[in-house]
Amino acid sequence: MTQGSYVADKSSSGGEFNRDTSYITTRITSRTRGAEGGAAGGHYPVEAGRYRLVVARACPWANRAIIVRRLLGLEDALSIGFCGPTHDARSWTFDLDPDGLDPVLRIPRLQDAYFARDPNYPKGITVPAVVDVPTGAVVTNDFAQMTLDFSTEWTEFHRDGAPQLYPEPLRDEIDTVARRIYTEVNNGVYRCGFAGSQEAYDAAYDRLFTALDWLSERLATQRYLVGDTITEADVRLFTTLARFDPVYHGHFKCNRSKLAEMPVLWAYARDLFQTPGFGDTIDFVQIKQHYYIVHADINPTRIVPKGPELANWLTPHGRESLGGRPFGDGTPPGPTRESERVPPGHGAG
Amino acid sequence: MTQGSYVADKSSSGGEFNRDTSYITTRITSRTRGAEGGAAGGHYPVEAGRYRLVVARACPWANRAIIVRRLLGLEDALSIGFCGPTHDARSWTFDLDPDGLDPVLRIPRLQDAYFARDPNYPKGITVPAVVDVPTGAVVTNDFAQMTLDFSTEWTEFHRDGAPQLYPEPLRDEIDTVARRIYTEVNNGVYRCGFAGSQEAYDAAYDRLFTALDWLSERLATQRYLVGDTITEADVRLFTTLARFDPVYHGHFKCNRSKLAEMPVLWAYARDLFQTPGFGDTIDFVQIKQHYYIVHADINPTRIVPKGPELANWLTPHGRESLGGRPFGDGTPPGPTRESERVPPGHGAG
Repeated sequence: MTQGSYVADKSSSGGEFNRDTSYITTRITSRTRGAEGGAAGGHYPVEAGRYRLVVARACPWANRAIIVRRLLGLEDALSIGFCGPTHDARSWTFDLDPDGLDPVLRIPRLQDAYFARDPNYPKGITVPAVVDVPTGAVVTNDFAQMTLDFSTEWTEFHRDGAPQLYPEPLRDEIDTVARRIYTEVNNGVYRCGFAGSQEAYDAAYDRLFTALDWLSERLATQRYLVGDTITEADVRLFTTLARFDPVYHGHFKCNRSKLAEMPVLWAYARDLFQTPGFGDTIDFVQIKQHYYIVHADINPTRIVPKGPELANWLTPHGRESLGGRPFGDGTPPGPTRESERVPPGHGAG
Repeated sequence: MTQGSYVADKSSSGGEFNRDTSYITTRITSRTRGAEGGAAGGHYPVEAGRYRLVVARACPWANRAIIVRRLLGLEDALSIGFCGPTHDARSWTFDLDPDGLDPVLRIPRLQDAYFARDPNYPKGITVPAVVDVPTGAVVTNDFAQMTLDFSTEWTEFHRDGAPQLYPEPLRDEIDTVARRIYTEVNNGVYRCGFAGSQEAYDAAYDRLFTALDWLSERLATQRYLVGDTITEADVRLFTTLARFDPVYHGHFKCNRSKLAEMPVLWAYARDLFQTPGFGDTIDFVQIKQHYYIVHADINPTRIVPKGPELANWLTPHGRESLGGRPFGDGTPPGPTRESERVPPGHGAG
């Protein structure tokens, strides 16, 4: 089926939504691990000030990168550019910036950075993308590897007290949990929303809520998904949960219940939301605008709902009683820098 | 704006949805009050076995008539025909009946009864409609007057113990409350769902929830809307509340919160639902099919959501502590007759 989102290319077979998962998989890796200096096809070296992370606050895949960059304190080493919540048929755009140009890359559309990499780039123009500022070309849009590399390759630029989001002893478990979260939840909500038939939707709905029940059970007795600290797995689940009631519940018909009616997951989501680095990246206004305006095929009026009320994200969650050390031996990040703050009225409360 | 529902004709100005409220206002009145014998233009006389009430379980306006007929015990005097939940571009149809024909009227489409009344009938083919069986012609589709006449004109055929749904001393108050419920709630949800612009929607949303807040306040300290027994006003509010979470919350974007998140209204709605004559008329499957399949202009995929879970309609409501005598000096109706029961799996639980 055709739909307007450039979050990723999509196709369907038998009415079931399938995500095109072929991304530009070039990596940016630590020099100490033998990266070369940007040779085409090889790895790019980690370098402060060289790259720009391009995101949209609306997008759940980009939201991962915003959170991890902030938790690790990479703001000085890796600048960030924000696309607006909607996009035209071709590309995410820098319509929020003065003159509609990204102030560093000096381009109006993210597609310009993709075409700098490959003039015939055939895939969707997606966020998040890391752009090599000197050449203006996208290095990678492989969102899954991107945040892992922030944790494991960019270590020399981590802030003091940065948490271990992908600790070596827990990687297998994180990978296993994250894989199921990806197929069943992160992508599962899209499978409901973009189902091409009643049968495909019904099956997608059952898969999604089976996975949410599994997560509720897992999180009933432990504060975080893996180990006793926040990890990459929590980041990945959080970005979908934050969008659940504002968008997925109504727009994607993921409506067995609201997140706010699933007690364990709702408390877990609020716990993270209230943790520095999570809720302070969430722009509910942009999130709703993105989905309801861009997906005209399922919301032809493009009218954006006023609800739901969101102040309840700030209510006590009680998850401290489960123990856990959010940042392990590290510390929470400080306040968001002013230029990167979510506008007043766009968050909870 | 154009949309496929024959609940009523609709038009819009400035993006705001307006309901065409000109109905066939012929009344069926008691002989003792001087009705004539069916002369064109005059009143028709109340008579057992002469008329057929045509409804669709999906439709909130028809649902009023189903409830009131059952509360008053008019089943023997006034037969009932059920249209299916969806309809084609022309008319509600008897697609649930054998051979697709109403077993009494022997017509496939409700429009046939409208055309028997007026071959050039220019308005929407709406339910509820009362049809004169001998002539096959619609007598009235004026849903607001219809249920009041059931209460006040059909008294000779009321069951023993029938409640006073429109008691003389309370009529002014019932009329006042019912008028606000009609414009702000019954019709207010449609004003949200069929808004032709963001501005019209935003205004409609505010109007709706202002009214729901007023109702929450009113019902916080009294069990029913007017007096201490069930009246016509409660019937009129109930049919919208029953559809709120399954349809209006998502499909019409009435999503400040679910009904299940408004404690007073939710307890009030469950109290009525669990009262004989109310919940036993609700077919959630047909309700969802109607709105999501018929309104292709706002749900082009016509996919019907599987949610929400509905078993919670049967949970304790605690409203007995407010006092009140549901049926006043009367009694609850007995079990629904078998031929008129909501099919298994279509109700709550």
